[in-house]
Amino acid sequence: MVPEPPASQPNADGGLGRLLERAFAGDRMGLARAISLVENEAPEARAVLDAAFPRTGGGVRIGITGPPGAGKSTLVAQLARHYRGGGERVAVVAVDPTSPFSGGALLGDRVRMAELAGDDGLFIRSMASRGSLGGLAVTTTEVCDLLEAAGFTRVLVETVGVGQSELEVAEAVDSVLVVLVPESGDGVQAMKAGLMEIGDLFVLNKADREGAERAAQELRAVLGLKKSEPGAWTPPVLLTVARTGDGVAELAAQVERHLEHLRAHALLAARRRLRLHARVSELVYQRATRRLRARVDAARWETVLTALEERRLSPHQAAAALWKEAWPDEEESPRP
Amino acid sequence: MVPEPPASQPNADGGLGRLLERAFAGDRMGLARAISLVENEAPEARAVLDAAFPRTGGGVRIGITGPPGAGKSTLVAQLARHYRGGGERVAVVAVDPTSPFSGGALLGDRVRMAELAGDDGLFIRSMASRGSLGGLAVTTTEVCDLLEAAGFTRVLVETVGVGQSELEVAEAVDSVLVVLVPESGDGVQAMKAGLMEIGDLFVLNKADREGAERAAQELRAVLGLKKSEPGAWTPPVLLTVARTGDGVAELAAQVERHLEHLRAHALLAARRRLRLHARVSELVYQRATRRLRARVDAARWETVLTALEERRLSPHQAAAALWKEAWPDEEESPRP
Repeated sequence: MVPEPPASQPNADGGLGRLLERAFAGDRMGLARAISLVENEAPEARAVLDAAFPRTGGGVRIGITGPPGAGKSTLVAQLARHYRGGGERVAVVAVDPTSPFSGGALLGDRVRMAELAGDDGLFIRSMASRGSLGGLAVTTTEVCDLLEAAGFTRVLVETVGVGQSELEVAEAVDSVLVVLVPESGDGVQAMKAGLMEIGDLFVLNKADREGAERAAQELRAVLGLKKSEPGAWTPPVLLTVARTGDGVAELAAQVERHLEHLRAHALLAARRRLRLHARVSELVYQRATRRLRARVDAARWETVLTALEERRLSPHQAAAALWKEAWPDEEESPRP
Repeated sequence: MVPEPPASQPNADGGLGRLLERAFAGDRMGLARAISLVENEAPEARAVLDAAFPRTGGGVRIGITGPPGAGKSTLVAQLARHYRGGGERVAVVAVDPTSPFSGGALLGDRVRMAELAGDDGLFIRSMASRGSLGGLAVTTTEVCDLLEAAGFTRVLVETVGVGQSELEVAEAVDSVLVVLVPESGDGVQAMKAGLMEIGDLFVLNKADREGAERAAQELRAVLGLKKSEPGAWTPPVLLTVARTGDGVAELAAQVERHLEHLRAHALLAARRRLRLHARVSELVYQRATRRLRARVDAARWETVLTALEERRLSPHQAAAALWKEAWPDEEESPRP
């Protein structure tokens, strides 16, 4: 695994520009450093992102999500191998906001397998930190930008944690694979309740276990309940055995079919436009946050919180007072 | 179920003040209307919340979460019955951001059982909408405020959906119950990955099924792995059969023990202070959002998005430009 260098020394190799030049030309160490700068919200982060952005757009981002134990990591490794076989340059991002340490360790194994084998067309990165300012979707998108700028044409984003990370990562990618196993009855339950909404493709992994075909039929039935417009995408349900690689080529073909569908209906551009909108909005709110932090000090917050606890101020009244402090020269905000 | 009245006619009964007077005095229809005003972000919402806030603080908010099919609804009904037996006024809020319709329907059954039985000390409310501005945690907190202002001393907040709703609702309550069933192997998996962090008490429901005691031991072992300070709260693992009510009294006793622990260590006040901080911050950002919407029109957004798509602007550059439009008289924000 490429060790993460201290983010504070981007100039050690002759300046940020040189670092980025190397990173975008395919230097793994330079790329790892650039990603760390962005992840750690270093002062150089914005310059890194601004330099990367014009070089993006040449890759496809695929999210892989599902409950723990479904075999996502093995499936991702097989997909990566498949894409490598087709000449694509592949990056894997493992997103684990809940447990930074185990995530990193798990990843270590895979990296030993892959990177030490000396394949320059494969890059693996753990994303443990949640980021203090931006949400997970934003940080994931930013890391994907750097990877695309460095020439990776298939970026596989795997969620390791459960919960909101799945939904946030879904916002950051072009196509979402939901991975389940045949025997988990709550697979269908979970889908009814949330994952069904985000999946573009469904994979029943470990399909050599009993009941796989029946589970697939149940899944298709559940998915069929979704009302859809004529011409809309119907998420396929695929069977794989990631351990052996069975079904992986067909899965990859179906992913391409989905991307083709998005392109044919101008949906890929629409998805990406929506992402850009969300991202810019997020950056504007980060500016508002910084402004608030800069103008309202901790002591003042204490006073306000005490007034709230004693019910002398309501939350809205407190917000109005703080707003006035952060933006003193401004008229009251347009709506009450 | 109390039908939701149109939010646009708060004055039909003689003004907002009269409506709130009735709501806080225990009138169910008035309360339902006041909640709708807040949920729908009606122009009157802020006045409703400002009036309610000084009356809050007299109740306890308990979150009930866990995977679909664990029996949360039945357990909530049993807890409500238990608290009613002790003379508490009980409100149940079912939070289902993913599927507004099924949530409402599910709730309908319970309401028929409970409310049509004419118990004025029990109020049940579905919260289907996510709210366009505030997050789920904020909306939940606001609805809880209204319920407390109306004299409900036990507010049970049940998450119906899965995913991020669990984590968000956990931020809005004093004590979190995580409900699981004995045979779900991913119970332990799910906990390792996320739910373990938010649970103050763990319930193995349907404990008359085989393997319940063993599952409880496994769960305790997993929870024991968490490093904890001396004197810290160790989440108990309780066995219940919600269908029959077995174990519910003991569960309620343990909830009280947890609240007592929080009070004894000044943690209840700290939790609530943290919530107030988050809520006020959120309201300040809502103001920023409104400002941005008011100052930057759709056509301008289109121009910016096109420039982004064509890679002529980076997201940071776009954010800087929009910020300048929304806050034109202001110096550049303090940090880059």
